[in-house]
Amino acid sequence: MKKYIAEFIGTSWLVLGGCGSAVLAAAFPGLGIGFVGVALAFGLTVVSMAYAIGHISGCHLNPAVSIGLWAGGRFDGKELPGYIIAQVLGGVLGAGILYMIASGKAGFEVGGFAANGYGEHSPGGYSMMAALICEAVLTFFFLFVILGSTYSKAPRGLAGLAIGLCLTLIHLISIPVTNTSVNPARSTSQALFAGGWAVEQLWLFWVAPIVGALVAGFLYNYLSPEEE
Amino acid sequence: MKKYIAEFIGTSWLVLGGCGSAVLAAAFPGLGIGFVGVALAFGLTVVSMAYAIGHISGCHLNPAVSIGLWAGGRFDGKELPGYIIAQVLGGVLGAGILYMIASGKAGFEVGGFAANGYGEHSPGGYSMMAALICEAVLTFFFLFVILGSTYSKAPRGLAGLAIGLCLTLIHLISIPVTNTSVNPARSTSQALFAGGWAVEQLWLFWVAPIVGALVAGFLYNYLSPEEE
Amino acid sequence: MKKYIAEFIGTSWLVLGGCGSAVLAAAFPGLGIGFVGVALAFGLTVVSMAYAIGHISGCHLNPAVSIGLWAGGRFDGKELPGYIIAQVLGGVLGAGILYMIASGKAGFEVGGFAANGYGEHSPGGYSMMAALICEAVLTFFFLFVILGSTYSKAPRGLAGLAIGLCLTLIHLISIPVTNTSVNPARSTSQALFAGGWAVEQLWLFWVAPIVGALVAGFLYNYLSPEEE
Amino acid sequence: MKKYIAEFIGTSWLVLGGCGSAVLAAAFPGLGIGFVGVALAFGLTVVSMAYAIGHISGCHLNPAVSIGLWAGGRFDGKELPGYIIAQVLGGVLGAGILYMIASGKAGFEVGGFAANGYGEHSPGGYSMMAALICEAVLTFFFLFVILGSTYSKAPRGLAGLAIGLCLTLIHLISIPVTNTSVNPARSTSQALFAGGWAVEQLWLFWVAPIVGALVAGFLYNYLSPEEE
Repeated sequence: MKKYIAEFIGTSWLVLGGCGSAVLAAAFPGLGIGFVGVALAFGLTVVSMAYAIGHISGCHLNPAVSIGLWAGGRFDGKELPGYIIAQVLGGVLGAGILYMIASGKAGFEVGGFAANGYGEHSPGGYSMMAALICEAVLTFFFLFVILGSTYSKAPRGLAGLAIGLCLTLIHLISIPVTNTSVNPARSTSQALFAGGWAVEQLWLFWVAPIVGALVAGFLYNYLSPEEE
Repeated sequence: MKKYIAEFIGTSWLVLGGCGSAVLAAAFPGLGIGFVGVALAFGLTVVSMAYAIGHISGCHLNPAVSIGLWAGGRFDGKELPGYIIAQVLGGVLGAGILYMIASGKAGFEVGGFAANGYGEHSPGGYSMMAALICEAVLTFFFLFVILGSTYSKAPRGLAGLAIGLCLTLIHLISIPVTNTSVNPARSTSQALFAGGWAVEQLWLFWVAPIVGALVAGFLYNYLSPEEE
Repeated sequence: MKKYIAEFIGTSWLVLGGCGSAVLAAAFPGLGIGFVGVALAFGLTVVSMAYAIGHISGCHLNPAVSIGLWAGGRFDGKELPGYIIAQVLGGVLGAGILYMIASGKAGFEVGGFAANGYGEHSPGGYSMMAALICEAVLTFFFLFVILGSTYSKAPRGLAGLAIGLCLTLIHLISIPVTNTSVNPARSTSQALFAGGWAVEQLWLFWVAPIVGALVAGFLYNYLSPEEE
Repeated sequence: MKKYIAEFIGTSWLVLGGCGSAVLAAAFPGLGIGFVGVALAFGLTVVSMAYAIGHISGCHLNPAVSIGLWAGGRFDGKELPGYIIAQVLGGVLGAGILYMIASGKAGFEVGGFAANGYGEHSPGGYSMMAALICEAVLTFFFLFVILGSTYSKAPRGLAGLAIGLCLTLIHLISIPVTNTSVNPARSTSQALFAGGWAVEQLWLFWVAPIVGALVAGFLYNYLSPEEE
């Protein structure tokens, strides 16, 4: 049960921190943090939580990560449903807190919140096919780094930093394409508040990350045999 | 006594570095560091001091941190008054040095210095309620990360990095809301120089961070039993 | 064989992440990541891969690195051809994925992609001589840092971070001069897609980095005797 | 002798990297790295060199650091002259390489290069007194962090990161005040190329950092007894 609470709190932090920086601070006139700041924020939610709850739940914070770790032989499939439910609910909590703060500004409109999208809802107008490739490929590399940096021969204690900064990197590349998901729980949390097109396009941000994660899990198993 | 001197020096660094970057460099024409730079500066005051004085005083630099660590069973309540006094005095020293430097520029006016505020004194015009929620929730997560990353099972030696970068993240989210406090000593130091509204609104930046810190302390105690 | 696959995947990540951030996100209107974001992205491809595949292949991702490590007595010359081929092919894969994503935006033109250049193709209009010096000297320092931070007396486990952040630093200095290579595989991958002048100028981005790497390898051998 | 060569190479990297990013990339139209990028660059020269040569020479790269370490009982006074000479010569080498690259752009004028200054030569127009306080106080904190994070009880291996990021922080605060020195070798290297006022004002960037470093060395000795 403590594992699920940890994933629940951790994923709420990922959404509040990452999406919160995007909604509240990215476009502040003159001094805003831009995509660099949002990319840094997403990564640092993982860095900070990895050291806080890594020893409790492994700090997945992301259904695609849990599924990729299962495919890589690092995570028990029986725990998948509990983890995924905790992650989605945590994401919704984070989005709810963000909504409460953001709506405390006169003239606030939820708009697309920090939802992920493609086509006309891609920040830079990228097609659905580009979004599919982008999300699947970047989640593949995300899981590849997670599996590699937590492998028994990798340096102790630095995986949390490498993984979090990998998520920063992923955002530096792809915010213009899809607003960057690689995380179905993060996408779901925003779609619930944004509604409309964000819900209609949500399928892609479950399918593409999970496909990328599965491929990474199976490939890494070939490159490095499962840990004893 | 050495612990108190360490907290005094460390908190003066937090204020001089974090508030100093905001006052001196954030809005420099064309090349200014913006909110991203200020967020980085606050976090790096903690990263640098954590490794410098962590082994002397634990490097709290913040009354809410000391109180949250007490609630989490990690810090002796008898030391609370001494730590908090040292932190507030250190913050005032940092603010005083910053004032001496900042006033060396022709046409300097103290204005709001780097004080925290809500309502019409929120950088982005956020309400008192949004500020209360924001400061309490972010301090909750800050303490949650502090308690988790310094837990006995967490990787050795990396807590200072995780905690400092967590403070960077907190600023990436919330400078537009309250100018970001999560630290009553930091807020007090600026209010003393800014005066007026900054003093009147100071109560919130004691109450909200302490509430968030207490909740985190008690919750973490449930998730991970107190260290032997 | 696993080493070559690791270098292949790792170099594709370096190109997709570094060049991808440049092509997709650097100049996004208003919120773009600029040269700071691109510099961070290149460095973080190395940070993330270093912890993921360092224990498999050493994570060179760059023919100049493999050659410099050979000159420094750290890498077997018999493996050079395999590593370099894997790196170049991986770079091409990364560039191909990037092309597929980037071309999903209406009105996309490949232009110079993220190719390296000098003279009129230098971002800031720097001469061929400046480009030669810049690439050779920066690759020298890159290899010096790689050789030093992986030396047996250096702190365990932190080389990946030091080396990756060194690559960020190199980009912070030199994107205006050559768009920054210090990596023949990265340059080749972009030149194949950009064609024309990028292919004509490609020689410099093989010659200069390799010269710098060789000098660093031989010098470091003098400063610190080869590891037993 | 190897120690001096290491300090020579390391300080040339600090100047080439830090001042180089300022001269070449800070003000690039639209995509420039600004003060945030320059601050990051200076810090990363130290991070990267700390892991590369820390085990050879201790990686001071700065006469004020060597003097502060001597005052703190960590460094043999007999080695001071050799270290300082190597650092100043290394700085000049770095500045020379930078000059060769920078002058490869049509229309280049050396102007103030990346020299440090006060009064009308302060980037933000800060007075001599503000510059004196700023340089002395920031060097005090720099040495305080260096002495603390390399103390025997501090976490192993992370000092290089804490110290380098502390230098980034120092630049985030004070580039507008003095263009940030805290390092007489760095200041001297630029003044030699800039000439004129930069040479006339150079005294301050020897005096203030050394005073700050001495105070830190003696104070830290009181807080933490000299290592056995």
